[in-house]
Amino acid sequence: MAFEHLTDIPLEKAKTEYMELLIKNGMAPRTESVPVAEANGRVTAGPVYARICSPYNNVSAMEGVALDAELTSGAGEKTPVTLAAGQYVPVSTGDPLPAGRNAVIMIEDVVKVPAGAVGGELREEIREGEPRETGDGDKEGSRVNDTITINKPAAPWQHIRRIGEDICAGEMILPSFSTVTPSAIGAIIAGGISSLSVIKKPVAGIIPTGDMHIPPENCPEMEDAAAHNAAAHNAAAHNPAMISAMLRGWGAEVISYPAVGGGLSEICGALETALSECDIVILNAGAPAGRAENTAEAIAENGAVMCRGLAIKPGRTAVLGYSGPKPVLGVPGYPVSSIIVIEQILRPIIEYLCRRTPEVDRYTDAVLSKPIVSALKYQEFVRVRMGYVKEQLIASPLGRGSGIVTSFMKADGIVEVPQGVGSYESGEKVRVRILRSEGELRRSLVAIGSHDPLLDELSELLRVGYGDISMGSAHVGSMGGLIAVRRGEAHIAGTHLLDEETGEYNISFIKKILPKGGVKLIECVKRTQGLMLAKGNPKNITGVAGLAGEGLRYINRQKGSGTRILIDYLCRLNGVDTSEIDGYSREEYTHTSVAALIAAGSADAGLGIYSAAKLYDLDFLPVCREQYDLLIPDHAWELLTVQRLLEVLKSAAFRQKLEAMGGYVIENPGTVRFES
Amino acid sequence: MAFEHLTDIPLEKAKTEYMELLIKNGMAPRTESVPVAEANGRVTAGPVYARICSPYNNVSAMEGVALDAELTSGAGEKTPVTLAAGQYVPVSTGDPLPAGRNAVIMIEDVVKVPAGAVGGELREEIREGEPRETGDGDKEGSRVNDTITINKPAAPWQHIRRIGEDICAGEMILPSFSTVTPSAIGAIIAGGISSLSVIKKPVAGIIPTGDMHIPPENCPEMEDAAAHNAAAHNAAAHNPAMISAMLRGWGAEVISYPAVGGGLSEICGALETALSECDIVILNAGAPAGRAENTAEAIAENGAVMCRGLAIKPGRTAVLGYSGPKPVLGVPGYPVSSIIVIEQILRPIIEYLCRRTPEVDRYTDAVLSKPIVSALKYQEFVRVRMGYVKEQLIASPLGRGSGIVTSFMKADGIVEVPQGVGSYESGEKVRVRILRSEGELRRSLVAIGSHDPLLDELSELLRVGYGDISMGSAHVGSMGGLIAVRRGEAHIAGTHLLDEETGEYNISFIKKILPKGGVKLIECVKRTQGLMLAKGNPKNITGVAGLAGEGLRYINRQKGSGTRILIDYLCRLNGVDTSEIDGYSREEYTHTSVAALIAAGSADAGLGIYSAAKLYDLDFLPVCREQYDLLIPDHAWELLTVQRLLEVLKSAAFRQKLEAMGGYVIENPGTVRFES
Repeated sequence: MAFEHLTDIPLEKAKTEYMELLIKNGMAPRTESVPVAEANGRVTAGPVYARICSPYNNVSAMEGVALDAELTSGAGEKTPVTLAAGQYVPVSTGDPLPAGRNAVIMIEDVVKVPAGAVGGELREEIREGEPRETGDGDKEGSRVNDTITINKPAAPWQHIRRIGEDICAGEMILPSFSTVTPSAIGAIIAGGISSLSVIKKPVAGIIPTGDMHIPPENCPEMEDAAAHNAAAHNAAAHNPAMISAMLRGWGAEVISYPAVGGGLSEICGALETALSECDIVILNAGAPAGRAENTAEAIAENGAVMCRGLAIKPGRTAVLGYSGPKPVLGVPGYPVSSIIVIEQILRPIIEYLCRRTPEVDRYTDAVLSKPIVSALKYQEFVRVRMGYVKEQLIASPLGRGSGIVTSFMKADGIVEVPQGVGSYESGEKVRVRILRSEGELRRSLVAIGSHDPLLDELSELLRVGYGDISMGSAHVGSMGGLIAVRRGEAHIAGTHLLDEETGEYNISFIKKILPKGGVKLIECVKRTQGLMLAKGNPKNITGVAGLAGEGLRYINRQKGSGTRILIDYLCRLNGVDTSEIDGYSREEYTHTSVAALIAAGSADAGLGIYSAAKLYDLDFLPVCREQYDLLIPDHAWELLTVQRLLEVLKSAAFRQKLEAMGGYVIENPGTVRFES
Repeated sequence: MAFEHLTDIPLEKAKTEYMELLIKNGMAPRTESVPVAEANGRVTAGPVYARICSPYNNVSAMEGVALDAELTSGAGEKTPVTLAAGQYVPVSTGDPLPAGRNAVIMIEDVVKVPAGAVGGELREEIREGEPRETGDGDKEGSRVNDTITINKPAAPWQHIRRIGEDICAGEMILPSFSTVTPSAIGAIIAGGISSLSVIKKPVAGIIPTGDMHIPPENCPEMEDAAAHNAAAHNAAAHNPAMISAMLRGWGAEVISYPAVGGGLSEICGALETALSECDIVILNAGAPAGRAENTAEAIAENGAVMCRGLAIKPGRTAVLGYSGPKPVLGVPGYPVSSIIVIEQILRPIIEYLCRRTPEVDRYTDAVLSKPIVSALKYQEFVRVRMGYVKEQLIASPLGRGSGIVTSFMKADGIVEVPQGVGSYESGEKVRVRILRSEGELRRSLVAIGSHDPLLDELSELLRVGYGDISMGSAHVGSMGGLIAVRRGEAHIAGTHLLDEETGEYNISFIKKILPKGGVKLIECVKRTQGLMLAKGNPKNITGVAGLAGEGLRYINRQKGSGTRILIDYLCRLNGVDTSEIDGYSREEYTHTSVAALIAAGSADAGLGIYSAAKLYDLDFLPVCREQYDLLIPDHAWELLTVQRLLEVLKSAAFRQKLEAMGGYVIENPGTVRFES
């Protein structure tokens, strides 16, 4: 079996057939008995009938005296009834009704003889007449009073909680397949039941497979062996940890097995063990990926493969197999692929095994801020950030690579592009599966534009200061940010566009791109741009003029970014032909990623800001100081989120943080520099 | 301090002042370090920065060959480029890019020499040339091929996942106070982090206080000592178990301390211990209730009391105290009171200590099916069942006693009657805090009318058969059911109203009460009504005629119930003056509760159905067989829930269950007997 032979089965068809097949093979929820006190959130396996009544006795609902109501007949203000000690029994709330009594008079309505003392004190005094096992020792000296007076008749059964008032023995407390809540725990225990038959949590086993080690002969130079080991370790660890958390969240128990190599016999051995201990087994190709065909073969040897290959992206290489009634799933090694396959295929199975009514997915319409181009052949799951801009929900597609696990972490929703649909235009209304609450979306600040690590710090300061605000940044460059504001898709846009003629930043571009105005340009910082160079500057780069040198690998920012516009300008200024620069067309989207590639030796130089160079301990050759502003459309100005952002910009904490990062000049952040 | 001195502080004022006071005293979230893999659902205590890039190396995104893109320049169908072994390196998905290479060509685009073999096989063959540590042993015999052909040029950096493509070292993965999700776990581990600083779960201690034992001198005769012990035990156990589940659900850890007596010194001792181990302490008066004043005194001795007594119902006797920064709460012993006090007072504190954005309460409007009369002086929390009838959400108040824990278990919502509001009329639109999802409310079948235990069995069969349907029954008697249907408040109504003139059941009443028609009367069962008598009939009751006898305690059903109408009729028929019957005005709402009171010796006789008598092993004197029908309004007829109910009525399972319960004649359940 080879990659080419993958089937492209539509997802829904595969899901339906897989579930039917497993149920036909005997897959079914199992039950177990648990103490009621530990049953919160569990699902009842059968109807729960009360064993005893609650209350079990007729009990007093008040503090007072219990008596036969008949004794009080005719009692009134002017015709009080006096009762001797034997005619009443003092009772506390919850005390069983003494034999022969059928009413309780609350303590406030008991008039004492001799008069004078009332209420609580009286009660204490009455109680003194009763044997007390747990005396307080602090009420000594009270007088003993045996005779009481009543001046209102008692109705039979008044202030009495009757046997079975809450629950009658034999009554059904909960039907089958009910989720046990805290109050249900109270009711079930009150009904005399101490252990409960509930649906057993299905046990899912995860076996990472494939070559976990990074072959040393292929490794770039590593200065930090610890980091290298961490990287190798993490590649093996992060999928199982992530998958475990998902499965546990849906109600499964998880056994994480040690990773095995990609060989058939190894996989078979691990699978056999897992099948003996689990209800569900997941074979997860590690990163680097193992050989998918061995996964399918191992499943076939221990059961059968229903299908190999789904018409979805990511997740195409999933293997849907089984061993009798137990699902055995081959899940691709890429984290995004594994999330999608496990959510689509395993979640309904776990919900079935938990006998839980599946949560209904919530969908909404949103306007796309960027086009989505999808293969007709596949159903694609595109993660999007969302936020309300001008009362319209805007969806911005996140990185679509199968390895971009942060795209799931950041996602507010998923656009499920159906099979047969090729693309969605920018500005088009699309249906989005929502992953956040309405409130979270309302508190989300949408930043689209130029990248600076200070945006993350703003987001942090917003959370520390105001808790509930989140800020999502899309790094599309300064021009992209201005266009996003023009299209009503962003609350703020970072921008640092140099007007070569005037030497001014941003304003002329705003006039050109947003001729209708309706925006405010907010001062943020001045920051130092320069050439980031490998530590020690081994290639002896002295300035932009030398970038076209032989054996020098440059790494660039994407077109439309302020930094790209700057390097284009600097090259012109220095008479450098950019087509002579090796790597000028190799584009990254952030200062940080340019710095990271230089630090790793994958490039020798790139233009970027000082704070990024400092983060990676790179050499830095300053070339200019530029203005980095935030553009805010008027419609967003009054939003609480935006006003809080302005407060944060003006705060001492922001200033301190940026001073620590280095390379920033902080003058009057948060003030309006220009409006139109 | 006595009951009279309780303050009636408005809830919101108390909550605000309590929170402010605790924060002033230093109450604050604490942090701890946990392994990332175990951090799902936890809240980050600080910003999380990546330690390493992910990917850590430039890695191949495909299976194929890595090479220098320049080698392929000019390659085309007619101008293929041939490469020798040293000019390319076979790579698997995820393999680090070998030094000196800057592009990957996927295996499908590699043309082999000699021609003939393609794709997957080729790859195996290419790989044979590489050292393999974990050989499968199942691919032997492949030829070794060193030379490959390319007929499409490779672009630099194609099919390569760049260093930091997902995460750059130094980048913020998550800001502070973010809830860790499964994909965040993946991202954090990929960023080289293995343990995470998160907000520590606050520890809440629960100390049950008060006299837990039922004083033997006050006990009615007990035949079943085990049940008695169970009842006593449960009274002590069910509050702490319920409260623990609530607190854990909000993110706290819980220590359940053993119950202590109500004495001051005992409470003080337990409180001291708990304060040394917990962040929050709850003193919960057990049922039977302890002495509330000792709770307040114990708190005062270990700290201070901010207030004693809230203007809420239930929950008035709450004590809000503290010991330095630690909240110490005195919570009433009644389960409903304790739920309300803990939810209102402690939930925001736990959310604060967990640094979690509180879930926003959801509210909706609903039409009341019964009036609510509330004391002006208190804010009252009335639990309601809800369901959609005629596209209108109907709210039916549940039992309001503080001891009715099932009212919380059954509640779909809470009507929060504000202080100063005295009552809501039946039919009035009220604001309801919703406790269920919209979907759950849509799948809820509203049954209002006459009681029969078979309704619970219908509810059970609906769940077993269809999983997601729930049925809530309000027992208001047959007349109440007819009126509920008339007012558009119920989907179904159980009814068994005897027309004394014709001997027919229900039809004449429907014509009278629902003259406009629009209903179908569905046959359910015939059932046997009779006198339920204590086991062995010790009072020698021989029929209705003897109910007025000396020393005989009757227990009745409520006015408007079919059974009450029947006993009224039977008494007239037998010439019995009902005012002569002791207990004729003592009313219960279900057959089961009448049976329970007779079984407990609290009454000697009551009219009810055979299945209830059988459940409690009572003697039974049959007096007639009656028709028990279900009335369904036309607007509900087509609902899926109602159609499924009809299926269940016709099922063999229903028949079997009723035969086991006894006293039913099952002919054609589910068929229309009458419509108008």
